Amino acid sequence: MRDIVVFSGTSHRTLAGRICNALGVPLSPSLTTRFSNDCLQVQLQANCRQRDVYLIAPVVPPTQESLMELLLMIDAAKGASAAQITAVIPHFAYARSDKKDASRISMGGRLVADMIVAAGAHRVLTMTLHAPQVHGFFSIPVDHLTAIGILADHFRAQDLTDTVVVSPDLGNAKTASQFARLLRLPVAAGSKVRKADDKVVIDMIVGDVAGKKAIVLDDEIATGGSIVELMDRLKDFGCTEAAVACTHGLFTGQAVERLANHPMITEMVTTDTVPRPHQSWEALQVRSVAGLFAEAIGRIHAGESISSLFDGVDPTHAPPQATLFP
Amino acid sequence: MRDIVVFSGTSHRTLAGRICNALGVPLSPSLTTRFSNDCLQVQLQANCRQRDVYLIAPVVPPTQESLMELLLMIDAAKGASAAQITAVIPHFAYARSDKKDASRISMGGRLVADMIVAAGAHRVLTMTLHAPQVHGFFSIPVDHLTAIGILADHFRAQDLTDTVVVSPDLGNAKTASQFARLLRLPVAAGSKVRKADDKVVIDMIVGDVAGKKAIVLDDEIATGGSIVELMDRLKDFGCTEAAVACTHGLFTGQAVERLANHPMITEMVTTDTVPRPHQSWEALQVRSVAGLFAEAIGRIHAGESISSLFDGVDPTHAPPQATLFP
Amino acid sequence: MRDIVVFSGTSHRTLAGRICNALGVPLSPSLTTRFSNDCLQVQLQANCRQRDVYLIAPVVPPTQESLMELLLMIDAAKGASAAQITAVIPHFAYARSDKKDASRISMGGRLVADMIVAAGAHRVLTMTLHAPQVHGFFSIPVDHLTAIGILADHFRAQDLTDTVVVSPDLGNAKTASQFARLLRLPVAAGSKVRKADDKVVIDMIVGDVAGKKAIVLDDEIATGGSIVELMDRLKDFGCTEAAVACTHGLFTGQAVERLANHPMITEMVTTDTVPRPHQSWEALQVRSVAGLFAEAIGRIHAGESISSLFDGVDPTHAPPQATLFP
Amino acid sequence: MRDIVVFSGTSHRTLAGRICNALGVPLSPSLTTRFSNDCLQVQLQANCRQRDVYLIAPVVPPTQESLMELLLMIDAAKGASAAQITAVIPHFAYARSDKKDASRISMGGRLVADMIVAAGAHRVLTMTLHAPQVHGFFSIPVDHLTAIGILADHFRAQDLTDTVVVSPDLGNAKTASQFARLLRLPVAAGSKVRKADDKVVIDMIVGDVAGKKAIVLDDEIATGGSIVELMDRLKDFGCTEAAVACTHGLFTGQAVERLANHPMITEMVTTDTVPRPHQSWEALQVRSVAGLFAEAIGRIHAGESISSLFDGVDPTHAPPQATLFP
Amino acid sequence: MRDIVVFSGTSHRTLAGRICNALGVPLSPSLTTRFSNDCLQVQLQANCRQRDVYLIAPVVPPTQESLMELLLMIDAAKGASAAQITAVIPHFAYARSDKKDASRISMGGRLVADMIVAAGAHRVLTMTLHAPQVHGFFSIPVDHLTAIGILADHFRAQDLTDTVVVSPDLGNAKTASQFARLLRLPVAAGSKVRKADDKVVIDMIVGDVAGKKAIVLDDEIATGGSIVELMDRLKDFGCTEAAVACTHGLFTGQAVERLANHPMITEMVTTDTVPRPHQSWEALQVRSVAGLFAEAIGRIHAGESISSLFDGVDPTHAPPQATLFP
Amino acid sequence: MRDIVVFSGTSHRTLAGRICNALGVPLSPSLTTRFSNDCLQVQLQANCRQRDVYLIAPVVPPTQESLMELLLMIDAAKGASAAQITAVIPHFAYARSDKKDASRISMGGRLVADMIVAAGAHRVLTMTLHAPQVHGFFSIPVDHLTAIGILADHFRAQDLTDTVVVSPDLGNAKTASQFARLLRLPVAAGSKVRKADDKVVIDMIVGDVAGKKAIVLDDEIATGGSIVELMDRLKDFGCTEAAVACTHGLFTGQAVERLANHPMITEMVTTDTVPRPHQSWEALQVRSVAGLFAEAIGRIHAGESISSLFDGVDPTHAPPQATLFP
Repeated sequence: MRDIVVFSGTSHRTLAGRICNALGVPLSPSLTTRFSNDCLQVQLQANCRQRDVYLIAPVVPPTQESLMELLLMIDAAKGASAAQITAVIPHFAYARSDKKDASRISMGGRLVADMIVAAGAHRVLTMTLHAPQVHGFFSIPVDHLTAIGILADHFRAQDLTDTVVVSPDLGNAKTASQFARLLRLPVAAGSKVRKADDKVVIDMIVGDVAGKKAIVLDDEIATGGSIVELMDRLKDFGCTEAAVACTHGLFTGQAVERLANHPMITEMVTTDTVPRPHQSWEALQVRSVAGLFAEAIGRIHAGESISSLFDGVDPTHAPPQATLFP
Repeated sequence: MRDIVVFSGTSHRTLAGRICNALGVPLSPSLTTRFSNDCLQVQLQANCRQRDVYLIAPVVPPTQESLMELLLMIDAAKGASAAQITAVIPHFAYARSDKKDASRISMGGRLVADMIVAAGAHRVLTMTLHAPQVHGFFSIPVDHLTAIGILADHFRAQDLTDTVVVSPDLGNAKTASQFARLLRLPVAAGSKVRKADDKVVIDMIVGDVAGKKAIVLDDEIATGGSIVELMDRLKDFGCTEAAVACTHGLFTGQAVERLANHPMITEMVTTDTVPRPHQSWEALQVRSVAGLFAEAIGRIHAGESISSLFDGVDPTHAPPQATLFP
Repeated sequence: MRDIVVFSGTSHRTLAGRICNALGVPLSPSLTTRFSNDCLQVQLQANCRQRDVYLIAPVVPPTQESLMELLLMIDAAKGASAAQITAVIPHFAYARSDKKDASRISMGGRLVADMIVAAGAHRVLTMTLHAPQVHGFFSIPVDHLTAIGILADHFRAQDLTDTVVVSPDLGNAKTASQFARLLRLPVAAGSKVRKADDKVVIDMIVGDVAGKKAIVLDDEIATGGSIVELMDRLKDFGCTEAAVACTHGLFTGQAVERLANHPMITEMVTTDTVPRPHQSWEALQVRSVAGLFAEAIGRIHAGESISSLFDGVDPTHAPPQATLFP
Repeated sequence: MRDIVVFSGTSHRTLAGRICNALGVPLSPSLTTRFSNDCLQVQLQANCRQRDVYLIAPVVPPTQESLMELLLMIDAAKGASAAQITAVIPHFAYARSDKKDASRISMGGRLVADMIVAAGAHRVLTMTLHAPQVHGFFSIPVDHLTAIGILADHFRAQDLTDTVVVSPDLGNAKTASQFARLLRLPVAAGSKVRKADDKVVIDMIVGDVAGKKAIVLDDEIATGGSIVELMDRLKDFGCTEAAVACTHGLFTGQAVERLANHPMITEMVTTDTVPRPHQSWEALQVRSVAGLFAEAIGRIHAGESISSLFDGVDPTHAPPQATLFP
Repeated sequence: MRDIVVFSGTSHRTLAGRICNALGVPLSPSLTTRFSNDCLQVQLQANCRQRDVYLIAPVVPPTQESLMELLLMIDAAKGASAAQITAVIPHFAYARSDKKDASRISMGGRLVADMIVAAGAHRVLTMTLHAPQVHGFFSIPVDHLTAIGILADHFRAQDLTDTVVVSPDLGNAKTASQFARLLRLPVAAGSKVRKADDKVVIDMIVGDVAGKKAIVLDDEIATGGSIVELMDRLKDFGCTEAAVACTHGLFTGQAVERLANHPMITEMVTTDTVPRPHQSWEALQVRSVAGLFAEAIGRIHAGESISSLFDGVDPTHAPPQATLFP
Repeated sequence: MRDIVVFSGTSHRTLAGRICNALGVPLSPSLTTRFSNDCLQVQLQANCRQRDVYLIAPVVPPTQESLMELLLMIDAAKGASAAQITAVIPHFAYARSDKKDASRISMGGRLVADMIVAAGAHRVLTMTLHAPQVHGFFSIPVDHLTAIGILADHFRAQDLTDTVVVSPDLGNAKTASQFARLLRLPVAAGSKVRKADDKVVIDMIVGDVAGKKAIVLDDEIATGGSIVELMDRLKDFGCTEAAVACTHGLFTGQAVERLANHPMITEMVTTDTVPRPHQSWEALQVRSVAGLFAEAIGRIHAGESISSLFDGVDPTHAPPQATLFP
């Protein structure tokens, strides 16, 4: 079997280290140089020839920098005669640019997928793409992991009496409903209405939340604006408190300030697909996805099935285990 | 300016004739031959050299036949030195295969998009793809039309007092909510729950439908099973009657029998993106999209903007006109 | 060495079963689903990751269905991270569309070859393409088997006194002449003449057939029309009786009726590259090519030479063995 | 309409001059430089930007030189922003490498087709490819002319009493039989037999030639060896004399000596798709195809149909005119 | 003729405005949006359909941002059915990553060229690539302008007695020597030596500079470090003062401080391919290349020759005019 | 591990034999056939299936023949299902066509790189490309060896007192300066000036050569014209004698006569990347690069690092060893 070599971009070396630990493989050194004209250059500092190369690089803010670094890493691995290059992208920010909802706009999700392929990647390993169709933007195999098993584990230890899972958006409630099934909880969702051409607000909650505790599930939180708005609406509809869970906790702009101080929010649970915010934040719980990525890399390398990773966890990949629904 | 030549596949010549009428251009003859080994061959019987060629061919049942015929038409046009080949696909059935929701399944939407490009098409003109992200499966420009303006026109002439727009699926309510805005009506949606691994049912209606008339909006109706189920639920929640509107009225299997005889359904409104069912069906109203396609083809040919076609109609393409929201 | 996994399309599972038996490898399960809008979806139900995947799928009537199923199987195998995908196409119907013999016609042979490559196949294993040049339509390696060794074996056991090999067409007599060499028999051929624009008839036999028994060799028989015509001409020229051999016995339309009842035909020998006709037909002898395909798959997998498979059998691949021509 | 610019390779400027004369367009200058390391460089010395560029370059001996020059011309035209590049290849020598008739051999016909496309050509204009399937080796449109109309014109003026058209090879008699139809003559063919692994000889003539004059038709004559052999056999079967016609008269090696002195050969008719041999040869008649190429280029440029060029001439492109068969 | 539409990236709108002014065409509006997850999206706000689209976007610091914006603009123009997309890249920063001078490093120049092509550009218009071979990294036509005519014009008005043109690097003296020919001046060059693995210094000047004024010519100045070092060495070798000219004056880091205060430097001449530094700097002279780009765009659009633009200016594109060398 | 199979083109079988000897692997037989129409065909006469195939074929005069043979070998290996095809091109003549230094010229270096990739090569192993940027013309990995270690070894055994390394061209002095460092010698260079549009001469030597012995280093010598000119200039500047070293000693035209008789030249050292000239030439020393290529092939096959091959030899690949600079 070919050797395995793992490199990390500079955007989130902590996660790469954790994955390598779980995998029992050293993180090979690489050097990213910024020239005086602001161009980047990557040097992979371990032999790649005929090896299975894994490049761990979430595309996170500063997004253009981390994307370009990933592309240069792929190019360097290809030029260094890697046998197989897997771009490990725990968070793929450009997945949100997945449709033409205005005239003559770019569709960044497909463009970036094409760039990753053009650079020379043979496979992508990623987690919780904004829409499942984004999978189809890639012309190479994609192994698409989910964090909802890990997030559900977090809540399983808690008292879930009178708790309801809430999706911020009626239009994307499918994952929240899978999550609710894992926890055997009911589901509710915010319903958005457009007030003006440039203003969309959550004006109601569909489903019963009165007198209940909510677990809000979102795929990605950036500025936290829609979560704050959802909190206000949950309160209006009689919800007593809320834990918030998301796969990709970017927390950009004023997010930490807004969310840390919100009286409704008892807990913020996220994963380490992206770096932790710098500010101290007592209510923030970060669950690591490193073990899941390590297991996936190990299985890819050994030619074992990835889909069985999702047994009992993600109903989109495999039927839920019987024991979940007695 | 280059000449325009229009050919039609055999799956729906009626629509092609209507589009050509609206465009003021003759439908050029083509011959599809089936050999004794069941292979198809297409001959385009008008000069294509240096011309703008439009091939009108909805991918509808028998789906594989109509798809292969389209691919052969593209191949013939390419070999005949067409300057620009536009695949006009009013209904693109494979758009539903847009994600990997089980292990090791094919993703037909992306595959067929790649085949259309590999055959030699330069552009696709289509209507109401099952998910907006399917647009991104094509590596060539796609002009994506919507029928909701035409469907809304149908209902504008009616008394809409105490009427609510209903989406069959909580997870795809976005278009229904745009449609509701065009008619200035409230919106409701069916909420699905999985009863067993292979059984999903609509168990509740979110939004208020009691004592109201519904206009159900779906993108495509095939066997009509989920519409019938939705009707039962709407009745349970107090809805009095329902009109059903959809862009792509395939009505396969027992659909006509089921829907024509349902006591809740007052009217079925669809378009001619696919052929009309053979059975007689009094409640069926077919609104033609030929004018919209003709206008789009004319604009493509003249190098004019398509997006302006959607002013006041499709809020995803352009802001709604002021007069809609007084 | 990587593991080998074999799947079968639904068009001819019998052959796939025989090949797997000969190979000593189980036929892995797959599921082809037809949705209500007539779209197909394939699920490969065994792990493909890093494996050598062989997809056995003759492109036979219903041709568009079996072709699309093959393409979806390739797509699913690619998405499932197969290391190497071999499309095993015992009969490739579209090979007959190999030239432009009329204006602006499609060239299906090249188009379908491109589609198979675009879907993700790395190699093709096929038998008796209609013209040897069709090999060059594929941009991936093709292993091109011949059945004439197997067909010759059938006749070697018989009394071949006063027997002549006959090709239906003067323009394609090369294989018949190779076949004749294997049996050490003389060769003759039908000569076609065009009576009108749409009518080509066999008007004479070149070579001596008077008072002889004929073995007619063709690559593919569909409706059997030209075989019947050849029989009439052979009778005119004094031939006493004829055995007919072909690699691909499609027998479409009225073929079985026409051929089974023809007084000149003593025997019809074909192979199992395509399914056996449903009708009972005493004179039909089906020789299996499964062993040959199994041997070829085994050699591809083990990195052994395929060409040596043809020693003494196919003079196009290797010189005939000395013992054949004493 | 875009301007037309024509350049010529160095292998056959005479033909390019004739085509430009017939077209009424000047032959634009180009410079092919050979560096001291034997590399070639091409400079196109007229503006190509946004123009329709035609590069006239038969791939003839020295074959590798003329092929590489053609590829460099295409590259230069592409780099110079030509709008559309047509490779005009009156003789495409590599078309003979069209199948795998031995293990692990190159298939030059497909390879060179791919190289012409990779260099940047958008279209090929050629004449009498060795097999019609070679058309399918190109992934770009091919306009495929035939010289049999021009060759037939040559013989129409002669007394054709007791004359028969003869194909050297039973396996490629289709074009000869079309040619015979144009002249309303019967057809015969040589039948080849393999004497040893490396020796194929013509051992008989199928069809009646005794006491007749023959018109032998071949696509290409190189060393003339098989023509000489055919002459011997024709004499054996009682043929009195023969005119020989071919599209591509390469006449390499000892061809002129062999053929000019052969007592059976009364006349050698060929075209100017390749340069005339240097030796004096009284019986050689060269008919120009320049007018046909000029007409085709003019029609390509004007967006007119090429296929109508073949009315009454080439039955593969269009039905023969009624007046041909009274 | 198709219409022309010009858009500008945000990195250097001033230059785009000047080019549009010179061209007499309005700069069409576009909108670059930064989402809260730091992804960019571009909307082109003028009709692109069937038009010649020019996207002016120097790839300058912040380099990754301006590169990604350019790629998104190309993607948006392609999706909006532009007939022809020209990426106008007055400064292409990644051209410096043009070779593998260490193990396993990325080659950004080729990678970015491939990305620009993959995004959908049909042509590149650029100026003074770091090495002329970088032209060959693009698989699409490149029009490669030079600023040395404009820089030479600046110095022609001055007294050039006892002046010598100096190249900072012996290894790249070719352009400096062309520049010297335009001004009829002698040329000298700095010679670099490697002191340690990570330290290269200019240790001598080849050519006579004692008692002379220098005009130093470089393609790009970033931090100015090597210019400062060259100044010291020129002083050591007796040079009295120096003007410095460069095409791409990036002036990053401490460049302005270092260069503005250097006693040897009398004048800094650059062009507007990149934005002017923010600091005030009396000795800085910026000559605009807008007229040259406008002329080139006009000629591309009209299908006129670009190379004639270089007559008498750039000896690499055309021989110098006679009047330059009396 | 896969087996290794090595084939050689006909242009330089001696080198291939040496490489195979050093590698301990037999040179597998292949057959290059020239047909009567001057087309080439290659047959690889050893099994390639699933093997690592190395095709040794310097692109040397007759350049078009050796290039086409290489392309056909690649095609044959691809068609024969080779697992990995490495084009071993010790001399790549077309690398000199690396830029557009005149209007509308071909850029042969990039074109040939694209052809090698289009034919099916997965990797290139080459030596001393004319410019390092040519590496970037290939879209596949390139392992780029240098001969300067081998050439330096030749001189290390000599007395190097009062010796200077001389580059013929100021513009390409970088490698000469690396070479000088390996020998701890100073460096000088010829400075070229253009006397007329078509005439460039060396008019001075920069650096001190008076009273010294020169070692001239060039990458490639063809006609030897510029070396002779350099010798004259070295003599003018007081140099006493010169050894000449080059990687690629083509010695075309009158090169041997000119150089063998030149009074300044004491020794000519080259390598066997190209065949030795046929003439006897006492001063010619050929050092073999076979060992270096064998080592590189062995490492590629074993998945070991190539870059470490250059330790202490080529400062572009690795830092010089400490012992070199005491």
